[in-house]
Formats: sequence, structure tokens, C-alpha cells
Amino acid sequence: MRHVLSILLQNEAGALARVATMFASRGFNIESLSVAPTEDERVSRLTLVTSGEDVTLGQINKQLAKLVDVVAIADRTSVAHVERELGLLKLRVAPGAVEPLAREVGNFGARVLDEDPDHMILELTGTEEQIDGFLADLPTGVELLTVARSGALVVSRGPGSLAEDLEFLFEDVGPVD
Amino acid sequence: MRHVLSILLQNEAGALARVATMFASRGFNIESLSVAPTEDERVSRLTLVTSGEDVTLGQINKQLAKLVDVVAIADRTSVAHVERELGLLKLRVAPGAVEPLAREVGNFGARVLDEDPDHMILELTGTEEQIDGFLADLPTGVELLTVARSGALVVSRGPGSLAEDLEFLFEDVGPVD
Repeated sequence: MRHVLSILLQNEAGALARVATMFASRGFNIESLSVAPTEDERVSRLTLVTSGEDVTLGQINKQLAKLVDVVAIADRTSVAHVERELGLLKLRVAPGAVEPLAREVGNFGARVLDEDPDHMILELTGTEEQIDGFLADLPTGVELLTVARSGALVVSRGPGSLAEDLEFLFEDVGPVD
Repeated sequence: MRHVLSILLQNEAGALARVATMFASRGFNIESLSVAPTEDERVSRLTLVTSGEDVTLGQINKQLAKLVDVVAIADRTSVAHVERELGLLKLRVAPGAVEPLAREVGNFGARVLDEDPDHMILELTGTEEQIDGFLADLPTGVELLTVARSGALVVSRGPGSLAEDLEFLFEDVGPVD
């Protein structure tokens, strides 16, 4: 099953390495991962998408919660949340494909960041599935040259703040043995 | 100096851990990092922002290029590229602040993903600096509850494809000793 984890990490060299190593040591593949600063300069927020046995992931989560760098961890999969991903696409566009592509761009709400006679850089935001769909449905005459994706980011719905999240998340982890 | 690295990684458990460990072992902090699948299912694209001594980073890059998981690596800092980041913001909005916030949202080209009487989830895309600027300039009565950011993503300008990028990048790394 697909899981989306939010992890709050102390800003220390090696924190990300320890988290990634925990997954690797159990043979769990990380499908996508984003980590960047938050409004609290001591803490970074990491969002991670993975798939695998729920039991094994539960064990990994307990191990992660024990790492000193991990301030909090929560599996967002079953919680109401907003999920978005950023994709930067570079496309080669044949002359006849300019109009159908412009239609797709308009329908999706994509943005054109760079445009040359024969190629184009687009910015897309949406769920992983929506971006996959756009990539799968490129009009004839449009070739994907390259793509950079952020992986999913999630924010819980409701009025919770990072500070409250931290509390909530600590509770969520619960006492670990 | 700030550096933005593009790294193409084989999709294998442990690849990310090995990259992150390389930075940690030299005491280099990773400011932000995104990794997600590409159009080639064997390869993920990782974008990483870091700051530090150019000489040390050069050494890290050479070490990274030796890892079997690392297909290619390039420092985009001095190459023409498009850079964008995704930010999801949850804001508490006082009644008097709804209008000034709507103006800021319009000026920035942000999108409202979720709206309740007293809070709001926004999606922003822009450079790291532009998102920092939006966060620093929130109107009075608007409080940042939480933020999730992707870190910078980069795509080189010009018609280069991933396949060509790979070739280019291999050349860029050059023979490593």
C-alpha cells in the first residue's frame, strides 16, 4: 500500500542520511522524497512516499521515531490532507502540435516558463496521478525531453499549526519501546 | 556559495542513503532535496541545494560520481536553467485580512487549495527567494500555521533531453581518479 509520511527533522548534517539509511536497511524503496526548511529554523519538513508491507513500515516508523534527529513523524495516508506535487517538463514541440498542446496546458492550468521555436518548459502542479496523466496524454508531435518532479507534498486539512502538529505528531508516535 | 546539483540516480534501495551519507560525512548540510521518478523507470532525478566551500563540494561531487548508483551529476549553478519550488502554506486569516491576502495571492499567482472561515491552504510556485518573500510579507492578521516546501527543482534551458543530459553530465563529471 502507498504511504505518505510527514517527518519533522532537526536541521543537522546527517539527519537525512539516517532516515534514508533506515529505509534502505529494511530494503524499502523510497519512491519520492522532499525535504526543505520550515518556518522554524531548527526544523526541516520531510515528505516521503513509499509502498510496502504495512507491518514493516510500522516497524520502520517506530525506529525512525527513536532517532534523535526525528522530532515527529506521522503517516498522512488515513488523515484528511491536501497533496500536491510540482513537475517541470521540457518538451520538444513539432509545429503542428503547438495548438493542441496549448489546449492541454490551458485545461490543466499548467504554466509556460520558457518557450523556443521547437521546445518549451512547463510547470505543472497537481497530485502525482494528475501529473502522470498529463505526461501520458501528451498530444501527437510533443516529445518529453526531460522531467524534474518534487514528489508529493502534504499538508493536513483543518486549522492545525506546525507547533500543534508537533504535539499531535508526538502523540501519534506514542511511547516507543 | 549556494550550489544546485542535479543527480541522476539508479532506482535502488539505498541509493539516496549513500548520497546523503556522503554529504554528512564531510559535515555538509543539505538545505533542500527532492527526489522522484523520471520518464526512464530505471532512473530517479534528485535536485539538491547546498552551501559551502567550493573546493570541498568539488571533492564531494567526485566521490558521488564514483558511487555505482549515481548515473550522472552536474552542478547547475553556472548553467542556464529554470528553477522553481513548490510551497504549500496553511494560514490563519483574521476577518479583516481576507481582502489584503486575496490581493497578495492574486499578485503572486498563488492558488487557493482549501478555504475555511478562519484558515486557508495556498499553493505557491516560484524561486526560493520569491517564496521566502511571500512568507516575509504576509499581511497583518495573517498567521503562518505551517508550510511544506519542495526545495528547488531545476531544468536546464535549451533543447537537451534526459538522454543527452546523461551524456552531457557524464562528460561534465569527467574522468574521476
